[in-house]
Amino acid sequence: MAMDDVPGSMGTSAGFALRLGQTIFSSASLLFMAYGVQFYSYSSFCFLVTIMGLVIPWSFTLALLDGYSVLVTCPVRQKGILVIIVIGDWVLSTLTLAAASSGASVVDILMRADESFCPSNICSRYLLSTIFAFLAWFLSMGSSLFNLWLLPSL
Amino acid sequence: MAMDDVPGSMGTSAGFALRLGQTIFSSASLLFMAYGVQFYSYSSFCFLVTIMGLVIPWSFTLALLDGYSVLVTCPVRQKGILVIIVIGDWVLSTLTLAAASSGASVVDILMRADESFCPSNICSRYLLSTIFAFLAWFLSMGSSLFNLWLLPSL
Repeated sequence: MAMDDVPGSMGTSAGFALRLGQTIFSSASLLFMAYGVQFYSYSSFCFLVTIMGLVIPWSFTLALLDGYSVLVTCPVRQKGILVIIVIGDWVLSTLTLAAASSGASVVDILMRADESFCPSNICSRYLLSTIFAFLAWFLSMGSSLFNLWLLPSL
Repeated sequence: MAMDDVPGSMGTSAGFALRLGQTIFSSASLLFMAYGVQFYSYSSFCFLVTIMGLVIPWSFTLALLDGYSVLVTCPVRQKGILVIIVIGDWVLSTLTLAAASSGASVVDILMRADESFCPSNICSRYLLSTIFAFLAWFLSMGSSLFNLWLLPSL
């Protein structure tokens, strides 16, 4: 089987799109959560911001690597590097899922509480941030699975 | 490579121990959360109870299957069945992680709130339930990974 038969893995344009999507969604999640809002009163939101701060550089670096590979049509095919990328993706997607779902449960509680506790414009920002975190988890899991699928053929 | 070289996969005694541990931990999580406590005032706790209600029969059935396989020394080796088990384990472990972390964030908020909102004996039960859910996630993920490791050799 040719290597390029796995769309979405490292060094394909679909893989580049996945990485770009992860970077955009995690940045959006971080901005909605952290920019001008007192997010640090809830430990779930602090966790979400921390994890997004880890996911953004990871996805951005791999997006650059993928973009470069697509341009020079010379993808990374060392097995060791791919194993590290799969494990890193898997760990980060697990952490992103944990952060997104704990953030979602806090948003759920805040939205049931009375208005003075959480003004509706702040609450909708928290909600958007959580939704973007779930989207980032989805794409990150996709990258991890596609690269795992590629692994045995190396 | 012989099939039995992967400890923890289907049909080994380590696999049986993993399934038994999942059943025990998820049952403990469900009991601490649901028995005699008004858990349904928080949607995260309802989610946790629902997921534990899915995990318990799944783990229990596979524990029975594993125990039977160990006794008759004739493990299940059909590739199709193993694929279904790996996918089912993976979906359930993802849901368990989401439920456990959303439950943990609610427990964190409740423990910071004042005493009248959550008496300390109830709060410690919620906390124990969440800890058992995390342990069930850990074991379920282990089963999924060991069976995934076994899959290419079939």
